[in-house]
Amino acid sequence: MHEYESNIINGTKMANDIIAEIKQEHDNYMGTNKSVPHVAIIQIGDREDSNIYIKKKQAACEKVGFVCLHYKYDSDILADIVYRLLYSLNGDDKINGIIVQLPVPENFSEEDLLGKISYVKDIEGLNAYNMGNLALDKRVPLYVPCTALACMEILKRENVLVKGKHVVVVGKSNLVGLPLLLLLLKEMATVTTCHIETTDIISHLQMADIVISACGKPLFIKKSWLKNGVTVLDVGINTIPNPDLKSNSTLTSKKKYKLVGDVDTEHVKTIAHKITPVPGGIGPMTVAMLLSNLLKSYKFQNGIV
Amino acid sequence: MHEYESNIINGTKMANDIIAEIKQEHDNYMGTNKSVPHVAIIQIGDREDSNIYIKKKQAACEKVGFVCLHYKYDSDILADIVYRLLYSLNGDDKINGIIVQLPVPENFSEEDLLGKISYVKDIEGLNAYNMGNLALDKRVPLYVPCTALACMEILKRENVLVKGKHVVVVGKSNLVGLPLLLLLLKEMATVTTCHIETTDIISHLQMADIVISACGKPLFIKKSWLKNGVTVLDVGINTIPNPDLKSNSTLTSKKKYKLVGDVDTEHVKTIAHKITPVPGGIGPMTVAMLLSNLLKSYKFQNGIV
Repeated sequence: MHEYESNIINGTKMANDIIAEIKQEHDNYMGTNKSVPHVAIIQIGDREDSNIYIKKKQAACEKVGFVCLHYKYDSDILADIVYRLLYSLNGDDKINGIIVQLPVPENFSEEDLLGKISYVKDIEGLNAYNMGNLALDKRVPLYVPCTALACMEILKRENVLVKGKHVVVVGKSNLVGLPLLLLLLKEMATVTTCHIETTDIISHLQMADIVISACGKPLFIKKSWLKNGVTVLDVGINTIPNPDLKSNSTLTSKKKYKLVGDVDTEHVKTIAHKITPVPGGIGPMTVAMLLSNLLKSYKFQNGIV
Repeated sequence: MHEYESNIINGTKMANDIIAEIKQEHDNYMGTNKSVPHVAIIQIGDREDSNIYIKKKQAACEKVGFVCLHYKYDSDILADIVYRLLYSLNGDDKINGIIVQLPVPENFSEEDLLGKISYVKDIEGLNAYNMGNLALDKRVPLYVPCTALACMEILKRENVLVKGKHVVVVGKSNLVGLPLLLLLLKEMATVTTCHIETTDIISHLQMADIVISACGKPLFIKKSWLKNGVTVLDVGINTIPNPDLKSNSTLTSKKKYKLVGDVDTEHVKTIAHKITPVPGGIGPMTVAMLLSNLLKSYKFQNGIV
């Protein structure tokens, strides 16, 4: 059944290519005494997943010589203190991008925090004004949320045309599903958005030329639900108990869990035209897109065209 | 085949009910010396359809005692003069709502004009900040575009549940299709957006529980494309040559043309659970929603909760 050879999209390699392009572009206009792009990441609390994502962002910045500042607060910090930091970062000419690492603890308002990031430094593209310009026909947002941008960049670099194609997006989150839907509509795809309340997801998936899943349900999407030649982007990053654990109890603690996507890739890959793996698919591309947005912000703020 | 009796939604009656409710609500808190809501409509050029729409808005305002000011410019007016009017209206405490009648002549930028309307007076909900808040989960826009609001209000008043239902929206304009999609997603419908580049619209329509068409193609949507029991909202307002004209050449000039929607209502009504007619469906409801937005704006600006 392996009709398609090498149909597994290498997100890590693609991300490294983009990061090299970003470094090259930045080096091209940076003299010896010039500044470098700075991003500030604000973390409230100590979620393990947030720690990992932040480390990845820091490592990527380091690769290209961008500066990544990390402000970490206990989850019981006063909101006012975080707000004051945000105001100070907004006013600091050296800072080009500001990220509030999501999710924030329940005692904080995500909307209030994100709403206080200056529009020109909102490199994750999550404020209402950005999202409105992303939604509206003939308007151009300054920034597009990185994961949605990663999906579109993968489709572009893999020469998967979007115009006129039927795309099913599974999930409608502010971070991924919603901006993806809006980007796909701008590119003239026919888009169906499915989510937790969708009653007959299979009938939609069976019609799809492209499926993009961002619903956080491990191994949810099955081969029999899809048509031959579908392109599948798997945004899910889910942790499940390692299935090999029963047969081998000597595994170290690190191997008790396994990362999987929303898609049953092992089987789906046999019918897919192209498919992204988890890990090594959307994840590294999202980080590359963050660097791309940061460079865009730096250029914008320094009047570099 | 007339399985459903009285399945034609009476948009005119519903709009009149809402207008009476609006008048009642306004009368309740208005003393003898109090101000009334004011809306300013700016028209550039002399399009016949715009003239008609503006007259309808004026008539509706008159019904409830709201003031409707009409500023009409020749299409060759300097943009600066219109901008100055917009600034002056933004700063005028008496004015609660500002409308730039669309479409504007080609020598004007719709984006520039709409972008100059103060956020709190943008009662057509077309600025990017409003649209972003409409798009984002857990955010609430101040205003929602009137035609999209009209469709949702009809579904609500006709007890057509949206949550978990498959809705096909035909068209993705800033004015109708896009905000409708966003509203429907907020209400947890599964939404497919079809448009000019959609290759197989019938297969999507055949699955739909609710179809909302805003594509401007006269009598486009056929009975055989829909499933039994579908609810159909027809946003299209199209002018076609009167089909009775051939057999009766003595018709007056006014009857040379006929208003029809995007849907072949005559046949579709035999299988639809509910359907809106054209005229007398979405049209009057859109005007009612404009009054509703204007009252909301008036209350907001006068601190009335």
